Amino acid sequence: MMNFRTFLFPLLLLIFQILFTFLLGFHSEYRYFPVTNVTNYENPPRGLVEFYYSMFTDIHVMMFIGFGYLMTFLRRYSFSSVGFNFILCAFTLEWAVIVRGYLFDWNTTNQKFIVDVQSLTTADFVSASILISMGAVLGKANPVQLILMALLEVPIQVVNEYIGLHIFCAFDPGESMYVHVFGAYFGLAVAFVLYRRNVEDSPHEKSRYTSDIFAMVGTIFLFCFWPSFNAGVATGVTRLYAVVNTYISICSSVIGAFLMSNLVKRGRFDMVHVQNSTLAGGVAVGTIAGSNIGLHGAMVIGTLAGMISVLGYEFLTPRLKHIRIHDTCGVHNLHGMPGFMSGITGIIVASISDRSGYLNHLTDSCLGGGAFRGNSTQSGYQAAGLALTLGMGLVGGLVTGIILRLPIFSQKENDFDDEIHWHLPEDPHKPLLQNHPSARL
Amino acid sequence: MMNFRTFLFPLLLLIFQILFTFLLGFHSEYRYFPVTNVTNYENPPRGLVEFYYSMFTDIHVMMFIGFGYLMTFLRRYSFSSVGFNFILCAFTLEWAVIVRGYLFDWNTTNQKFIVDVQSLTTADFVSASILISMGAVLGKANPVQLILMALLEVPIQVVNEYIGLHIFCAFDPGESMYVHVFGAYFGLAVAFVLYRRNVEDSPHEKSRYTSDIFAMVGTIFLFCFWPSFNAGVATGVTRLYAVVNTYISICSSVIGAFLMSNLVKRGRFDMVHVQNSTLAGGVAVGTIAGSNIGLHGAMVIGTLAGMISVLGYEFLTPRLKHIRIHDTCGVHNLHGMPGFMSGITGIIVASISDRSGYLNHLTDSCLGGGAFRGNSTQSGYQAAGLALTLGMGLVGGLVTGIILRLPIFSQKENDFDDEIHWHLPEDPHKPLLQNHPSARL
Amino acid sequence: MMNFRTFLFPLLLLIFQILFTFLLGFHSEYRYFPVTNVTNYENPPRGLVEFYYSMFTDIHVMMFIGFGYLMTFLRRYSFSSVGFNFILCAFTLEWAVIVRGYLFDWNTTNQKFIVDVQSLTTADFVSASILISMGAVLGKANPVQLILMALLEVPIQVVNEYIGLHIFCAFDPGESMYVHVFGAYFGLAVAFVLYRRNVEDSPHEKSRYTSDIFAMVGTIFLFCFWPSFNAGVATGVTRLYAVVNTYISICSSVIGAFLMSNLVKRGRFDMVHVQNSTLAGGVAVGTIAGSNIGLHGAMVIGTLAGMISVLGYEFLTPRLKHIRIHDTCGVHNLHGMPGFMSGITGIIVASISDRSGYLNHLTDSCLGGGAFRGNSTQSGYQAAGLALTLGMGLVGGLVTGIILRLPIFSQKENDFDDEIHWHLPEDPHKPLLQNHPSARL
Repeated sequence: MMNFRTFLFPLLLLIFQILFTFLLGFHSEYRYFPVTNVTNYENPPRGLVEFYYSMFTDIHVMMFIGFGYLMTFLRRYSFSSVGFNFILCAFTLEWAVIVRGYLFDWNTTNQKFIVDVQSLTTADFVSASILISMGAVLGKANPVQLILMALLEVPIQVVNEYIGLHIFCAFDPGESMYVHVFGAYFGLAVAFVLYRRNVEDSPHEKSRYTSDIFAMVGTIFLFCFWPSFNAGVATGVTRLYAVVNTYISICSSVIGAFLMSNLVKRGRFDMVHVQNSTLAGGVAVGTIAGSNIGLHGAMVIGTLAGMISVLGYEFLTPRLKHIRIHDTCGVHNLHGMPGFMSGITGIIVASISDRSGYLNHLTDSCLGGGAFRGNSTQSGYQAAGLALTLGMGLVGGLVTGIILRLPIFSQKENDFDDEIHWHLPEDPHKPLLQNHPSARL
Repeated sequence: MMNFRTFLFPLLLLIFQILFTFLLGFHSEYRYFPVTNVTNYENPPRGLVEFYYSMFTDIHVMMFIGFGYLMTFLRRYSFSSVGFNFILCAFTLEWAVIVRGYLFDWNTTNQKFIVDVQSLTTADFVSASILISMGAVLGKANPVQLILMALLEVPIQVVNEYIGLHIFCAFDPGESMYVHVFGAYFGLAVAFVLYRRNVEDSPHEKSRYTSDIFAMVGTIFLFCFWPSFNAGVATGVTRLYAVVNTYISICSSVIGAFLMSNLVKRGRFDMVHVQNSTLAGGVAVGTIAGSNIGLHGAMVIGTLAGMISVLGYEFLTPRLKHIRIHDTCGVHNLHGMPGFMSGITGIIVASISDRSGYLNHLTDSCLGGGAFRGNSTQSGYQAAGLALTLGMGLVGGLVTGIILRLPIFSQKENDFDDEIHWHLPEDPHKPLLQNHPSARL
Repeated sequence: MMNFRTFLFPLLLLIFQILFTFLLGFHSEYRYFPVTNVTNYENPPRGLVEFYYSMFTDIHVMMFIGFGYLMTFLRRYSFSSVGFNFILCAFTLEWAVIVRGYLFDWNTTNQKFIVDVQSLTTADFVSASILISMGAVLGKANPVQLILMALLEVPIQVVNEYIGLHIFCAFDPGESMYVHVFGAYFGLAVAFVLYRRNVEDSPHEKSRYTSDIFAMVGTIFLFCFWPSFNAGVATGVTRLYAVVNTYISICSSVIGAFLMSNLVKRGRFDMVHVQNSTLAGGVAVGTIAGSNIGLHGAMVIGTLAGMISVLGYEFLTPRLKHIRIHDTCGVHNLHGMPGFMSGITGIIVASISDRSGYLNHLTDSCLGGGAFRGNSTQSGYQAAGLALTLGMGLVGGLVTGIILRLPIFSQKENDFDDEIHWHLPEDPHKPLLQNHPSARL
C-alpha cells in the first residue's frame, strides 16, 4: 500500500495526460480565418491572434506569477506554493481547453471543437477558479489531492458558467461570479471537509520577511494586469469600459485597503492586507466592468471592496475557524466577498435602463424571453446566476472534499512544510541553529 | 494630539478619495470612437484600445514593479519601499487622471474631460515623476508626507508640462524633462528641506544580499519596458524611432555603466551602479527618442549617460551631503543628470534641420511664431522648456518640503526602518541573534 | 601585467562600443513604411511596430528576467548570474543587430542594413544562444571571457543560421536548432576546454532556499512568454499554430517534468527539475511550432521532452563529468536534447505532405531544387541543417574555448563565488557565523 501511494501522483498525471492527448487528437482543431481585411475592431474575427494575444499573455502571467507568488508568503512552504501552482495550473489549462471545447465550442458538423487564442484565454479563466480554491486549502492538501480537485472542479465550473451565460444569460465579463465566487466557495467547502483541529496549532503558518516580499511580486503583477483579465474577451466599447473601470476600481481598492489596514492596526500596516485586499477592487468591479457605470461608480465599488476585504481578514477569518473553516490565503476576503458584491451590483446595474449593456448580448436561447428581455427580468436572471454559482460551488466543493478525504488520497504529514514534498537545499545556517524549530528557512 | 496623528493617514486618504469620486462623477466621461474602419496607424483614433494597450501595460508594470522593487534594496525597508510605492502610485494615478483631464482634455461643450487608455498612460507618466521624487526621500518621509507630496507635486508637474508642451511647444516624447528632470529636482529640493544631520548616522542605510537581488527585478523590468515608456503615446514613424532609439541607447548605458563601475571599483562591480546607472540611457535619449538621430547617435548618448551616472554615484552623491542633500536612491544620478543631458541634446537636435521632427507638431497656440517656427527658435524654446522645468521643480519642491516639515506631518522615528510602519513577521533567527542590531532581517 | 588585466574588461567594452557606433553610423538605417492602410495581417509590412511589438517585449523579458533569474539559483553567485546575464545580453544585442544586419538585411543599393522591431526581435534570438552557452560555463568563466565568447559566438551563430535558412532552407520557426541546439553544444564545447578538475570540489555549487525561489521567477516568465518566442516573427496561420502548439507543448512538459521528478525522487520533487525541465516542451516543439501537427502532436512532444529532460539531469549530467564536461545549469538537458528532438521531429514532419508548411517558404536560392523541392528533399535538408548546426556549434565552441583559455583571459579564482567580482553588502549574520564557510549569504 505504501508503495502504491508513492506512485499515485505520477500514475495519475500519466493516465490523464494520455487521455487528454486522445481527446485532443480526436476532437480538436485549430481555427483560423484568413485575415486579409481587418478593419473592424467592433467585432473582430474570432481567431484573430493580434486582437487577443497581448491581453492573453497578461492573463497567463497573472495565473503563474500572480497566483503562484502571491501564495509564497508562507515561510516554509514557498517551494510548494509556486511549484504546485505551476503544475496545477498547467494541468487545469489542458483539461479546461477540452471541457470548454466540448461544451462551448463544439461543432456538430465535423465533430470537433475549435482552439484559438480565445480558447486559451478562457482556459486561463477556468484555471483562476481552481487556483482560488487552492488558496483555501494551501498547505493542507497534497499534490494528489490538488490534481484530483482540479479534475472534479473544472467540469463543474464549466457547466455552471455554461448554464449561467447561455441559459440564464447572466453576464459577467470580468468573471466575478463564475470564477471568483465559484472558486472561493468551492475551495471553502473543500477546506471545511478537510478540516483537522491540529491545523490551528501548526508552528509554520507564518510568513518571514523575504517570503512576504516574494508574495508582493504576485500581488503587483495581479494588480497591473487585472484590466486585461476583466477585458480579456471583450470587444468594442465594452473593452474600453472594462479597461478603464478596472484600472480605476483596483486603484481605489489599494486606497481602501491601506486606509483600513492603517485604521485597524492603529497606525501601522499589515502585509496580509497589502498583499490581498488591495486587489479586491478588481474582483468587485468584474460583473459590471463592461458597463457604463461611470468612473465615480468604479471609485465607490473599489474603495468599499478594499475596506471590506481588510475587515474580513481582521474580524471574519478568525471566526470562520469556529465553524471548521480554515482559509489559508483568505480567499473569502479577496475573492468570495468582493465577488459576491460584484454579483449584487450586477443585479442593480442590470435593472437600470441603458447602463449595463447586458441586453445587447441576449440570444434566443436565453430563458425568460430570449433576446427580448426587459431590464427587471435581466436583473432577476443576474440574481439567479449568482445563486446558482453559490450553490454549485458549495455543493461541488463538499462532494469533492469528501472524495479527497478518502484514506487513499489523504495525508498524515505536517502542514505548511515543504520538507515532506521537496528535496530542500542544505542550509548554511543549519549547523548553528539546528535546535531551533523554524531556523532552517 | 497623539490620537489625531494616528488617524491622519486614513483620514487624508478618505477625504481625497471622496473628493476624487465627486470630481470624476461630475466631470469625466469615457471616450470611445466606434472603430469599424481602422486602416490608419499613422494617426489612429484617440480612443483605440488596441493601438495603445500593450505599451500601456508595460508602462504600468514599470511604475509598480519597476520603481517598487528598484527601491527594495534597503535591508530593513523593503516592505515600505514596495508598499509605499504601491499606495503612492495608486493615489497619484487617480489624482493625475483628474488634474490632466481638467488641463489637457477639457471639453468646454459638455463640461467634461475624456478618459481613455491614453489618459491612463499619461497618468502613469505623471506618477513616474512622483515616484522619482519619492526615491530622493525614501526612508526619511512617512506615508502622510508622501501622500501630501503627491497631492502638491501632481498639479505642479501637470501645469509645468502644459506650459512646456502647449505654450513653449518644447517637445519631449520620452518625458525626460517633464518627468525625469522635474521629478528628480523636485525630490532633491524636498530632501534638502527635510534634511536632518542624524540621517547620515543611520545604521540601516545598507543593502543585504537578498534585497539587492529583489532590487534587480525592478531594474530589469524598467530596462525591458523602457522603449514602451518613450514610445507610449507616439504614432507613425515617431513610434518606430522611439522604440529603436531607446532600445539601442539603454543597451549602451548598460555597457557604459558596467565599464565605468569596473573602472572606479578597480576590477569589481558595484550593485548600486548596476541597479541604476544601467538605465540612464533610457532617460538620456528621452527628449530626442522620436527623432531621426541615427542609431550611432543613440549609442553615444546611452554610453555617456551610463558612464556619467556611475561617476555621479561615486563622486557626486557623497558631496551632495555637504550641502544638506541626502539622496537615498541617487535619483540625481539616474534621473537628474541624464534627464538634463537629454534636454540639452534636444536643444541641439532641434537646431539641425529635418532631424528632430519637432516642427511637425507645432500649432497656432505656440509662442514664437506658432506653427511656423524655424529651427533656431525651436531650439530656444527647448531651452526655455528645460529651464522652466528646473525652476518649477526646485521651487515646487522647496515649498512642498516646507509644508511637509510642519510638526503635524513630520516624524521623529528612526530612518530606513520598516518596524515603525509595519507589523513585521516574527523572525526565526531572533532568539539566537537578538543582541545584534540588524539581525532581524 | 596585473595592472593590465585589471583594465582588460573596461578596455574591451570601450573598444567594441566605439567600433559598434561607427558600424551603425555608416551602415544602418531605420526602416519604416507609412502604414495608412493596414488591412492585411497575412503578410504585414515589415516595419509595422504594432504587429510585432507585443511579442517582442515578451521575448525581451525572457532574455533579461527569464535567463537572468533562472541562473540565480546558485547560493553565492546570484549577483553574477543576473548581472553578467544583463551585460552579456546587452552587448550581444548590439553586436547581433550589426552582424545580422550585414548578413540578412543588407541593401546593396544604399549600402545600409535596415533596423526595425523585427531586427530587434531576431537580435534577441541570437542573444538566447549566447545566454544558453553562458549557462554551461556559469560560475567558471569571468566577465572578460563571457564578453569574448559573445564576440566570437554571435557571428558563428548568424552564419550558421544564414546557411541553414537561406541555402539549405531548413526551417525552424521556434529556433530550436539554430538557437537552442547551437547554443547548448557551443557552450558544452567551451565548458569542455575550460574544464578544471577542482571545479567538482567547489563547496559553493549549491542552491539555497531563497535563491531557488528567485530562480523560479525566471522559469515562470520563460514559461509564460514561450509562445511569443516561437511565434515571434511568424505571420498568418503560422502564427496561430505557433502560439497554440507552444502553449500546449510547454504545459505538457510541466506535466512530464513533475511526473518524472516525482518518480526518480520517489515521491518528492526536485527544484532543479521544476526550474528547468518544465520548459523543455517549449524547446522541443520549436522546429515544428508553425506546422499543422495537431494539438495531440504538441501534447506528445511536450510530455516526452519534459520526461527526457528530467532523466538527463538525473542520470546523464553526472556522467558527463567523466568526459570533462561540467554543465552548470544543465543546458544539455533543457536546450541540447530537447532541441535535438525538435530537429528530428522537423525531419519527420517535413516528410509528410501538407503537414509542415515548409515548402511554402522555399525560394529560388535554396539548394536541392529551389522553390520546387519535394517533401523528402525537404526532410533531407532539415537533417542537413541539424547536422550543420551541431558541427558549427561544437567546432565553434572548441575554438572559442581554446582562445578563452589563453592565460591573459583566464582566471585562477574560486568558482561560483560572487566575492571576486562584486562589492558585496556587509552581512548582518557575519559576526555570528564567521567561521562557517558559506554563512555569508
